[in-house]
Amino acid sequence: MDAPWQTAHFPGTALRPLAERLFAQLRELSHDGVGITRESFGNKETAAQELIAAAAREHGLTVEHDRARNLVVTLDGQDPRAPFVATGSHLDSVPRGGNYDGAAGVIAGLLALIGLRRSQATPPRTVKLLALRGEESCWFGKSWIGAHALFGLLGARDLERGRFDTGRPLRAYLDDVGADVPAIERGEALIRPEQVRGFIELHIEQGPVLEAKGLALGVVTGIYGNLRHLDIVCHGTAAHAGATPRGLRQDAVVAIADLVMRLDQHWQAWLDAGKQLVVTHGILGTDPSEHAISRVPGQAHFSMEIRADDDATLHAFHALARDEATAVSRERGVSFSFDEAIVNRAAPMDARWIQHLESLCDHAGIPHIRMPSGAGHDAAVFAQVGIPTAMLFIRNAEGSHNPRERMALDDFLLATRVLADALMTPA
Amino acid sequence: MDAPWQTAHFPGTALRPLAERLFAQLRELSHDGVGITRESFGNKETAAQELIAAAAREHGLTVEHDRARNLVVTLDGQDPRAPFVATGSHLDSVPRGGNYDGAAGVIAGLLALIGLRRSQATPPRTVKLLALRGEESCWFGKSWIGAHALFGLLGARDLERGRFDTGRPLRAYLDDVGADVPAIERGEALIRPEQVRGFIELHIEQGPVLEAKGLALGVVTGIYGNLRHLDIVCHGTAAHAGATPRGLRQDAVVAIADLVMRLDQHWQAWLDAGKQLVVTHGILGTDPSEHAISRVPGQAHFSMEIRADDDATLHAFHALARDEATAVSRERGVSFSFDEAIVNRAAPMDARWIQHLESLCDHAGIPHIRMPSGAGHDAAVFAQVGIPTAMLFIRNAEGSHNPRERMALDDFLLATRVLADALMTPA
Repeated sequence: MDAPWQTAHFPGTALRPLAERLFAQLRELSHDGVGITRESFGNKETAAQELIAAAAREHGLTVEHDRARNLVVTLDGQDPRAPFVATGSHLDSVPRGGNYDGAAGVIAGLLALIGLRRSQATPPRTVKLLALRGEESCWFGKSWIGAHALFGLLGARDLERGRFDTGRPLRAYLDDVGADVPAIERGEALIRPEQVRGFIELHIEQGPVLEAKGLALGVVTGIYGNLRHLDIVCHGTAAHAGATPRGLRQDAVVAIADLVMRLDQHWQAWLDAGKQLVVTHGILGTDPSEHAISRVPGQAHFSMEIRADDDATLHAFHALARDEATAVSRERGVSFSFDEAIVNRAAPMDARWIQHLESLCDHAGIPHIRMPSGAGHDAAVFAQVGIPTAMLFIRNAEGSHNPRERMALDDFLLATRVLADALMTPA
Repeated sequence: MDAPWQTAHFPGTALRPLAERLFAQLRELSHDGVGITRESFGNKETAAQELIAAAAREHGLTVEHDRARNLVVTLDGQDPRAPFVATGSHLDSVPRGGNYDGAAGVIAGLLALIGLRRSQATPPRTVKLLALRGEESCWFGKSWIGAHALFGLLGARDLERGRFDTGRPLRAYLDDVGADVPAIERGEALIRPEQVRGFIELHIEQGPVLEAKGLALGVVTGIYGNLRHLDIVCHGTAAHAGATPRGLRQDAVVAIADLVMRLDQHWQAWLDAGKQLVVTHGILGTDPSEHAISRVPGQAHFSMEIRADDDATLHAFHALARDEATAVSRERGVSFSFDEAIVNRAAPMDARWIQHLESLCDHAGIPHIRMPSGAGHDAAVFAQVGIPTAMLFIRNAEGSHNPRERMALDDFLLATRVLADALMTPA
């Protein structure tokens, strides 16, 4: 019996050595001694693009770069002038990250195009593989820079953002790689949304859900929106710990603990009611300049991040959090100062694409689930400009953004086969 | 009608201007521009001693220094060779602290002795005023240094403690002020407990209880013991906030919030059951080298301080806290590492002295309550070596260890009158 990634228009077994070689070369060119570092708009990201471009050329595909220096690999469809279908992901990484976050989606797209060409299958629509630049927000404090540039969504202010480690502005790095900075600054779109019939992104799952369920693939229903308060301050009253009885305290730490627990309980109740959301307080602390073991803490600060699959849930939970903070303030004699909320809208995936990917998995006998993406992805930008967008997650142990990312090549080939199937479907 | 601080053996009204002058001079000599700073075994503490010594000499009292350079002022009783009664407190302060913490008890003792001498009252027992040095733990990381030296309780290790700001060891500061360092190092007691028939310390309350109740004085029932963990670490698992659903998280911040709330609820229940204790988490924080808004916190640390009026309560609540940490660990998939607990035993005040001070207040028509001292005091050392010990608290707004301490002179004179009454009582 053939392996499940082997089909008439996708010679998955024959392409397996190429996949192995590309991941190995990518690792080699970007290993930093600890993990993988491919800086957004930096040398290693460029080297990764060149590796992909060379393999694409070797296999007879058309290679070009757009004005933001995203790599574009094309396989013509039956009518090259008709709107195309795009696939791809990004080639940059966080510092000391893993080899698969982003790159797996680019290599999958490349293998799908090579496979279709080798098997002489002409897809119904032209297919473009996009190896997008600058997805990771850690470098310039902004996510999805290459994808934003595609649609003319970067402004002058974005170009002035300094890289976290060098302080040098994005503008200079764009110039280094040969991007058309004036066009980007003018907000010129490189692609009009109506030219794109669909965008399909493969990506490793960045959490433990598929691993925990023992499933290879997940079909993404939507990318969570998020609402962030970077720094909420709880103001109580500092006091002598020994001399201040319970009823006369305004304790900032206990007040925050109370709020955190109330939100944790609401979160569980909302999940029980079928809502999709996560709530995280990643940063918390008393003030080192005034805290002490024997002092009732007069002030403490914390962050709050809410992510949800739709904007209504996001804002409703945020309102609940504000209400609970007010209740805690009243009951415990403290007050909370919220900084301005930063909001990124939710990006639902296209219902028809979701169904289609599911039926392709079913047809291939690949066990899978529907799942939301709590993490952000380039695909969010495509969805937000109105392009029918879909994502396929590949099982990954040990999370992402660390050198321990672990994706099995078998799972990767299953996902790539589904992608190739999708690209052969009239859309 | 006479003021309530005016009695046959205590001319309180006549001494009021002296009290005002001494507090004003003390403030003047130790104001640092923001608050009051009288360093333990430093120049300002010495200057404060000299102010007290000069006033004592002016009023015909005997002045000497012991080998730890505590100031000792004596008024002979009916039998100068019999065991004496001591009163006093300390003259040092925290940096940028207030004028009354410690000094109020020394000035009260001085005024009581001057008052008795002026009114030609000979107390039944010799009375010694002790102006103790080095009470505040902030300077050398150790409390009650002068009181410990009295009873030979300092060791070579204590003498090597560096001052928090200069790093220079206590040994050098003791030498500066002329203390007998070799005798202190040998652990020679300057007083044997059986020489002391009782110790009475007046001190401002360091919390808001008397102020809240509208009472001038509190009779202290005991000084809380305390049990401290300086740094408890909660170990969870760092993870992508978006990609890690609730059920798969090991969130260190939520686990700590859970534990803090459990202990807060137990604390209330124990108070309702009549226990005397306070529980404080003064320090709390995620790790700045790895925390992030969008990261499930994998680690956080916090302090825990329990204070209680008896050692059994202290250790029972500590055991409960450990049990709850175990329960949270089990439920939330985290673990807690507790550092070694530092324990200071509780110091109950003498039951006969408590009753006696209460009856003196009643007799004088001074409204008062019994109350525990959550804060530590020199009196704890006297109680711990077996001397019958008592404390009287004076109402004080705005807490202590800050420049806003606010003690009314009327309250101070009431307390001083009760002290003079007590020193005239056969004990």
